[in-house]
This record gives sequence, C-alpha cells and structure tokens, in this order.
Amino acid sequence: MKTQNHLFEDIILVTPDKNGRITTTDHAYVSVRGNTIHYAGQSFEMAIDGFNGAAYERYDGRNRMLLPALANIHGHLAMTLFRNQADDRNLHDWLFNVIFPREERLDETIVYTGTLLGIAEMIRSGTGAAADMYYYDEVVAQAALAAGFRLNFSCDAKKLRPDGQYDLLPQLLADRMKQYAGHPSDLLRVSLLVHSIYLYEDALYPELAALAETLNCPVQIHVSETIQEVSECVEKYGCRPPQQLEKFGFFRTPTLAAHCTFLDDDDRSILAKSPVVVAHNPSSNLKLGSGIADLAAMIDAGLNVGLGTDGAGSNNNLDLYREMRLAALLAKGTAGDAAKLSAGQLLDMASRIGMAGLGFANSGRITAGADADLQIMRCDVPSMTPLGDPVAALVYSSDASLVESLMVQGRFLLYKGELRTIDEEKLLAEARQAAKRLNA
Amino acid sequence: MKTQNHLFEDIILVTPDKNGRITTTDHAYVSVRGNTIHYAGQSFEMAIDGFNGAAYERYDGRNRMLLPALANIHGHLAMTLFRNQADDRNLHDWLFNVIFPREERLDETIVYTGTLLGIAEMIRSGTGAAADMYYYDEVVAQAALAAGFRLNFSCDAKKLRPDGQYDLLPQLLADRMKQYAGHPSDLLRVSLLVHSIYLYEDALYPELAALAETLNCPVQIHVSETIQEVSECVEKYGCRPPQQLEKFGFFRTPTLAAHCTFLDDDDRSILAKSPVVVAHNPSSNLKLGSGIADLAAMIDAGLNVGLGTDGAGSNNNLDLYREMRLAALLAKGTAGDAAKLSAGQLLDMASRIGMAGLGFANSGRITAGADADLQIMRCDVPSMTPLGDPVAALVYSSDASLVESLMVQGRFLLYKGELRTIDEEKLLAEARQAAKRLNA
Repeated sequence: MKTQNHLFEDIILVTPDKNGRITTTDHAYVSVRGNTIHYAGQSFEMAIDGFNGAAYERYDGRNRMLLPALANIHGHLAMTLFRNQADDRNLHDWLFNVIFPREERLDETIVYTGTLLGIAEMIRSGTGAAADMYYYDEVVAQAALAAGFRLNFSCDAKKLRPDGQYDLLPQLLADRMKQYAGHPSDLLRVSLLVHSIYLYEDALYPELAALAETLNCPVQIHVSETIQEVSECVEKYGCRPPQQLEKFGFFRTPTLAAHCTFLDDDDRSILAKSPVVVAHNPSSNLKLGSGIADLAAMIDAGLNVGLGTDGAGSNNNLDLYREMRLAALLAKGTAGDAAKLSAGQLLDMASRIGMAGLGFANSGRITAGADADLQIMRCDVPSMTPLGDPVAALVYSSDASLVESLMVQGRFLLYKGELRTIDEEKLLAEARQAAKRLNA
Repeated sequence: MKTQNHLFEDIILVTPDKNGRITTTDHAYVSVRGNTIHYAGQSFEMAIDGFNGAAYERYDGRNRMLLPALANIHGHLAMTLFRNQADDRNLHDWLFNVIFPREERLDETIVYTGTLLGIAEMIRSGTGAAADMYYYDEVVAQAALAAGFRLNFSCDAKKLRPDGQYDLLPQLLADRMKQYAGHPSDLLRVSLLVHSIYLYEDALYPELAALAETLNCPVQIHVSETIQEVSECVEKYGCRPPQQLEKFGFFRTPTLAAHCTFLDDDDRSILAKSPVVVAHNPSSNLKLGSGIADLAAMIDAGLNVGLGTDGAGSNNNLDLYREMRLAALLAKGTAGDAAKLSAGQLLDMASRIGMAGLGFANSGRITAGADADLQIMRCDVPSMTPLGDPVAALVYSSDASLVESLMVQGRFLLYKGELRTIDEEKLLAEARQAAKRLNA
C-alpha cells in the first residue's frame, strides 16, 4: 500500500453529502493522506495543512471534475469472456445453448483472467468497487487484491451430492469470512451466494438463510428478475419472491437483491424495511427482454437502490456511466415526465448508496475522513463543452472514456490513462486466449 | 479537396450490403482513391491495383474495425450551446423558461460556433453526416463546409409579417438550393424547414407543401413527437398528424420525419408508402418524457428508419453509438423478447439508411465505387476484449471514444485522435464564451 500524499488543485468537486444531496464546488482543492481524504473544499492552505511539510503529488485539476469512484453492485465478472458471443437471442437459447456449455470448460485460470479483465474495464470506466457472483470465489478474491480493487464477492457454500441434493458447507463460508472479510487490505467483503428462489430445492432455502444469519453474513441474490420467475413463485408458494424469501428467513443480514424488475407495493414494503439494497440493472433487463423496473416507485417506497451492469455476457460492457444515464432516461420516459428523477439522484445511487450496499460505508463521498476512493474526469472535449451543470454533464453528456484517473484507498489504479496495477497488454492477450478455449 | 490514395491493411471490415444485410470480413484490405472507395475485400494486390504506382498512405488495421461513417438524421446543432443548462424539467418549463429566452440572444457568430461544436463532437463520435434544423441556415452551411462534413440543413423559407401571418419566401429557398444543393463540394443538401403540424397557422401548410413540391425540395419536420401533439391534431382536424400532413400535400418529396413516437397502423402505412425516412430519437424521447417509439412496429410496417440524437439541449450529446445501443435495448425490453431487432439492423439504420435519408445515397456502405465515408474503431481495450461478434461489439460494447479516425469524401476529418479540419482548442474556448453570452 502506498501512503503518498496527494493534492488535487483547482478542480470541480462533485459529491453526495451524507444524506445523498449532491454538492458542487468550483475551484476546489482535495487532499489525500495515505488512504484517506484529508480535506475537500476551496482552501489551498487547509488542503495542505497536515502534510507537515511532507512531499505530496500535485494533480492539475483545471478542466477536470473530481467525484467518488463508482460502485457496480451486481455482476458476474468473469463473464467478460462471453462478451458478444451470442446476442439477440432469447434467454433460454442463450443460457442453454451458449453459456452453460461454455461454463463447463471454466477453470481457475480462466476465471482469474476473466475477473481481472472485468476489473480492468471497470477501473477504466470510473468504478472502484463491485459485487461478483460467480464460480471459483477464491481466485476472484485474488484478482481483486492484485488489482487493488474493492470487491464484495459471493461464496457458494454448498456442494452437490450424488443424489442431486445439496450439502451446506458452513465451515467454508466461515473460513472465507475470516480470511477475506477481515483481510488487512480492507478491499474485500464476503457474501453468501444464493442464486435465486427458483434454482434449488425447497428445503435448502431455510438452511441458507439460517447460515447467513448465524454467521452474520451478507447475501447476494437475484430477485424477481423476470415476470416468469414471479408467476412461477406465486404458483408454487402462493406468494411473490420477496415475501417467500422473507418467510424462508432471508433479509436479516445485508442483502444485495439484483434486478427486482417486477415488484408490487407489498414487495417494495418488505424490501424497504429490510437491510436490502436493490441492484438496478437497466441495460441487462432490457437486453434480455426482461422489462423495465419501476425505479421511481422503488425510490418513492424508500428502498435503497444502487446500480449494476450485470455480466458482460448480457450487457455487453461494465460501464456504470451508461447505466446512470439509461436509468434516468427510462424513469422519465416511462413516467412521461422529464422531471422524474434527477441526475443527482442517479449519481448518488452509483456512488454513496452503492458503496454502502457493498459494505464500504466509508466510501462513495468526497469528504474529510472518507476513504480516498475517487476519480478524475476530463471536461476539455466537445461533448462536455459548454459544461453547464456539472452533475447533468456527468450523467447525461459524459462517457466513461473521459475518466482520466481512478484512485482506491489513496492508490492510483488508473493514472492519466494508464492502468497502474494491471499489465493491460498481457491481460488482453490472455483474455483472448481464454475466450478461444471457452468458445471453441 | 485532397486526392491522396489510402490503404487500410489487415482490418476487420463491417458494412451493410446494398440490401442492408451486414457483412463482416476479417483481415480485410480497403483502398481509397480520391474521394471514392476503390476496393474492399481480402486481397492486398487488388486493393493497390489501380493506384498505378502512385503513392498511398498506409493505415495499420490490426485490432481495428473499419465501418461506414454514421448519419445523424435529426438534430439542432447549435443547441450544443444549451447543453446541461436545464435538465430534469418538464418540456414546457424547459422551452419557455430556458430555451426561448436564450434563443432571443442568438446571432450568426453564436450559431456558427455552436454548429461547429456539434460537428466536432459528431466527428469524434464516428458521424460523418447530419441533418440540422435551426436558425441562420447560411452560417450552418458554412460551418459544415469549413469542417468538410456532410450536412442536410433546413431553410426557413418564410417571414413573419407585422400582422402575425407569414409570407412565404420561395426565391430564398430556390436560391439556397441552387447555391448549396449543387455545391461543388457535394457536402450539402437543402431541405425546407417545416417545424411541425402545431406551430403555424392552417393556411400556411398547403403553401409550404406546394413550395416543396414545386421546387422538388426535401422537407424536415417533427411528426407525432408527443401524445399531446397527436390528440390536439385529432381534436382540431379529426385525424392524426401523418394523415393531416398528407392532406396538406406533404410527403411528395423526400422527407425526414423526426420522432414519430406515437404512430398507429394507418400512420405507419402513410409513411411507408411515401419517400419518408423516420428519424428515431430514443434518448430525446425518453429524456423529455415523450415516451418510447415502437421501432419494431415501424420496421415491420416497412418504414425506413434512421437514427437521430436531437439537439444536445435534450440528449445531452450527439453520440449515435448511444442511440444505436439504446434503440436496440428498448426494442427488446418493451417487446419482452431479446431476439427483437439485431445489432446489424441498428448499424444499417445508423449508416446506409440514414445516409440515404439525408440525400447521400452513395454513402453508408464500404464497397468499390461508394463515397469514401468511413471510420476506424479501436478494439484493443478491455471493453472490446474478447471481441466476439464484431457487429454486436459495435452496437453493445463499444463507445464513441474508440473512434480513432473518421474520413469523409476520402479526407480525414479525424486522424488517430486529432481533428484535422477544426482547431479544437480555439473552438472550445469560443464555445465557452458563446455559452456565457447566451446563458448570462
């Protein structure tokens, strides 16, 4: 871990405050000591006070914005390797004829490469933290540590028996939590992987819920992604997925509930009163033909909602700038109201709320004492000129390519266009090789 | 006009054929003689045959795609200067409290700067041609000529009298057509500006339609953008906008019909049998709260549909890559069918169909004899790795920042990241000044 001091000078600072209201400060100075934000405001003197004469690296902020690193709260990172392999097909065809046969060929090396590829793409697009739900969780964790990237990864704490039933593996989950949730890097969080309400046998769900509660372990789960999932759940259990999951004992530990495309008022009430953060995935929901989640209704009901890209197999990228813009536009277009949801609300979802949802509650804001997780965006291009309102510019005009630098825990993972913790050329070559093996 | 020869070597060629089917060729060679594509295929020898020993500029195409320059068929270019000035407001508030007061302050210099800014942004995002509907059409034309950019601009051939009625200016339109539609550069097309069915007095519409027909002049018009427009038209005329416009005598010359958010079967029949190209503007339709146009229904009805960004005041950018992706995703998500509309259909709309709609029928495809309007896209980045299907990669994974070079009429307007016909730094400074004057 580098412990260098940094000063960002004469920059446009954009950040949520602790209540999620976005503040904008022109000609700002932001200083970083070690892995913490030391000062954020308009005084050069106060920014460097506390460095005690120690050296600091200066960053010219003119024609630049400084904002929090973003949080991608739902995805399957190694599915970057399935990018653009099978588009414009229905979900069943895609899953059974393309994805599942390829996933048979996965191994640890392939998953490590695919995960690191996803992390590289996210670093380049201003994301400093993500959730992951996939296989070989230990190599996933290793990829995040190698990149210096924050990750909430999920552990599949069960094992298929020859008779087709599952055995729970409580010790595995306990070990993962011990090893990684308390990892000295503070980069990692561990969740229990519960795919969805429709994939396992009934008896397993209460056991999984009890395991999460016993170990006080967060959960990652898909909830009400498609209308089919909802209607099959109603047919089987007599109630909709959120209610049935609550009956099984879920939502007692922090839970990332992915998609929530189809919720009714009761569903929203259940999720709003629980320690749940919904991962809204507007691109994936459209691209797979699932539908359009009613984001405004979720927010009105008091739910915490962050943004996710889902896997690159169904998006086909991991760019949260596209998700912010799309989520705002869909909310306006479906409500028939241009005033529905503001750019600031989307930025707050993608930063402060998302980071808290991943378990990084001290990140997602630029304020003294917060974790130094931030990004620098260029504004000196035609598409950002005139800049106008910086928050609108971020959500509606900008794109991820304008992210010039990204810092996590006070360490530059991207510095003026160059990845600092990943050998990008080597990674791209390995990824092409891995994809060839998978897609042969 | 430069008449240099060019050879693009070992590149992935992606292009519609004359029927709109997309073909992909690996390890392709594409050569350009003067302003025309000389060869496109897999033979180096055939590519350079015909240069007759003359020098040619070589372009290394490894890890690159070559595809047609895109066509943005609806917009108000100088509204770039209103970018991020007033977002998340309803349409009436936005128009009457923000846009109209600022438009009072427009002058020729401001419109020239704003138009050139829009052109610079489009060149950087792979667009080589656009439609424009705004004020001061002659300076708009000058901006396009200065940039070497293809433009179909609209002429407002009427004048407000003191009594509130309009006088037609047939000679003005005839002069514009003579001067620009036949301009030796072949960069320009002239249309008659007809804002919409709801803005002028009744008597003017048949006169405008007759003027267009008499001069055989194309038309640019907004059609059925909002549900209010449709219901007010039905109330006033007893029929919907396309039917009433047809009664007035429109749709007899090539027409760019912008938005068409709300069409019924009869509307689609009227537009499908006429020389109309619909400009589908999915971002603007969502962002202003207008709604979601049924793109699949338009295509099923046989309409020609291209893509537009609308003005940067309501988008807030001029990036057709975002429109391609959004249009495809919306079609799938609203139909509940991931197989609805393919990436290739979107690419064809944004290139071949759009170029023909603007009046550049020899552009929009990469084939021997076509106009040399093309772009080069980088694929050597994480978000394009593994590449997979190049067409899916273009529409779903890529973004405009990957456009490395853009050529129009055999001339590079963007070459390896640098604008060649526009002094970008000077333009951005002038645009900031102009915005200050407008938004004071």
